[in-house]
Amino acid sequence: MTKLVVGGAQMGPIQKADSRELVVARMIALLEQAAAQGVQMLVYPELALTTFFPRWYMTDQAEVDAWFEREMPNPATLPLFRRAGELGVAISFGYAELTPEGRHFNSSILTNRAGEIIGKYRKVHLPGHVEYQPTRGQQHLEKRYFEPGDLGFNVWRNEGVVMGMAICNDRRWPETYRCLGLQGVELVTIGYNTPSVNGHMKSEGREERLYHSELVMTSGAYQNATYVVGVAKAGVEDGYPLMGGSIIVDPNGFVLARAAGEGDEIILAECDFAKCAFGKTTIFNFAEHRRIEHYGRITAQTGAVVDV
Amino acid sequence: MTKLVVGGAQMGPIQKADSRELVVARMIALLEQAAAQGVQMLVYPELALTTFFPRWYMTDQAEVDAWFEREMPNPATLPLFRRAGELGVAISFGYAELTPEGRHFNSSILTNRAGEIIGKYRKVHLPGHVEYQPTRGQQHLEKRYFEPGDLGFNVWRNEGVVMGMAICNDRRWPETYRCLGLQGVELVTIGYNTPSVNGHMKSEGREERLYHSELVMTSGAYQNATYVVGVAKAGVEDGYPLMGGSIIVDPNGFVLARAAGEGDEIILAECDFAKCAFGKTTIFNFAEHRRIEHYGRITAQTGAVVDV
Repeated sequence: MTKLVVGGAQMGPIQKADSRELVVARMIALLEQAAAQGVQMLVYPELALTTFFPRWYMTDQAEVDAWFEREMPNPATLPLFRRAGELGVAISFGYAELTPEGRHFNSSILTNRAGEIIGKYRKVHLPGHVEYQPTRGQQHLEKRYFEPGDLGFNVWRNEGVVMGMAICNDRRWPETYRCLGLQGVELVTIGYNTPSVNGHMKSEGREERLYHSELVMTSGAYQNATYVVGVAKAGVEDGYPLMGGSIIVDPNGFVLARAAGEGDEIILAECDFAKCAFGKTTIFNFAEHRRIEHYGRITAQTGAVVDV
Repeated sequence: MTKLVVGGAQMGPIQKADSRELVVARMIALLEQAAAQGVQMLVYPELALTTFFPRWYMTDQAEVDAWFEREMPNPATLPLFRRAGELGVAISFGYAELTPEGRHFNSSILTNRAGEIIGKYRKVHLPGHVEYQPTRGQQHLEKRYFEPGDLGFNVWRNEGVVMGMAICNDRRWPETYRCLGLQGVELVTIGYNTPSVNGHMKSEGREERLYHSELVMTSGAYQNATYVVGVAKAGVEDGYPLMGGSIIVDPNGFVLARAAGEGDEIILAECDFAKCAFGKTTIFNFAEHRRIEHYGRITAQTGAVVDV
């Protein structure tokens, strides 16, 4: 009968010129605000420490690497971990990770309530493209600056709850939730940076994209009987609008809390993880109802093959 | 640039005493109504020819088999196929199939606009249970009366459109849509019989169940950039309420048409299948973005395994 008050720390825009220290100070302010409201587990956005730099086309690797963290915690982020530990709030946030071997990932970490890192995730579903695309309304160069995550989808038990992480575009793929659901996940944390306008079709704006974002997170929650917390970096960043729409979803697919604006904002909900059991033992009792003998294409075949 | 006017023939209740001939006459009336409105492809519910008999616990196999069709078309249904061919309307409907070998499936067929069967599907995800369960508000004995489908998820090209079928509970499983999406599906037909109250939890009523039904079909459509038409048998059948909520969903996940009531009712929408290309070539370009090396659990493991 585990309950936790889960919060989402939606963040307003981070401009190119903003230092890590400035951003971490904002994150600590959000943490304190959340803790004062009883939050025990707080989720921040994807790439929470910087502007969403994959919108910028860069050819100088040193310029690219300036957006990455070489260790975590590091001097700029240590105050956040320390304050979280003092307040007893578990946290998860995203950042650009540069490994000692020189590999680049779009990553996130999960801590326990002592502020210690217990899990790391590296984004599997990188959207966008590698080269400059002049026909796009804006660039989305994640495939240029990151490798696809090499760790897969994992879960950790934290405060008694089975937690998994995903990042941004991962949330649109039902495989993400299912890989976690097959490990009994009860809380999926998802940070995102989502442009308010589709780079391929500028008529697809904020309202439609908020609908899609909520659709995939609510269905992922329902179909795996898990809580989902999705947290945006929002507002106008370097002249480019990012949508908000941070939500906390219950294991029945219903939205418990939703951000109102596009700035720094805490949403929260008390999550009773015993409620995951109903779906997991009835309509989504995987052991009773899944038929893996007919799912072969899902893992055998990457792209669509039309042969009729 | 293929367009078709797609319809859903929602059906009101069919009582235990209603003959096949009576039901087929209703189906022909719906067909004629749809054709008069320009419908070129019409989808009927699951088990469209009879009451939803899996709500009844039976031990006499002859009594069970009376609900099954031994051939398709058969004398009772032939007038429907003939009239569909005359009107040039492709159809799909569900029925209980008893094979010459004595096997039982929850099946559906697909015809071309000449009224000829071009495809058959056998329901993969059977919900419910095998034995009588006294704690349930109502029985749901699909696992007793049917074998799981043995044909998998297939597509057929019909009037230029790549079509696939699923039945009722299949719609709640993202694997269903993905197996079809990996074959380039552009229209998924889904018939269903869904009790208005959850047999495991009577506080879960019509409103919540309509939300779930729409959630899974809209997300399945969006995540695979396909049209989906979901068609209910609805109303109070033998004293048990079935929900309606028939919908036609576009490849962007938006509902184009929705049934208003719980009786016999046509819904329709012009579907421009060229609109499937946008999602299939951008955000859901599977070849570019899927990462099957991390999806192994989906096909390797039926049930959830919690090892943290």
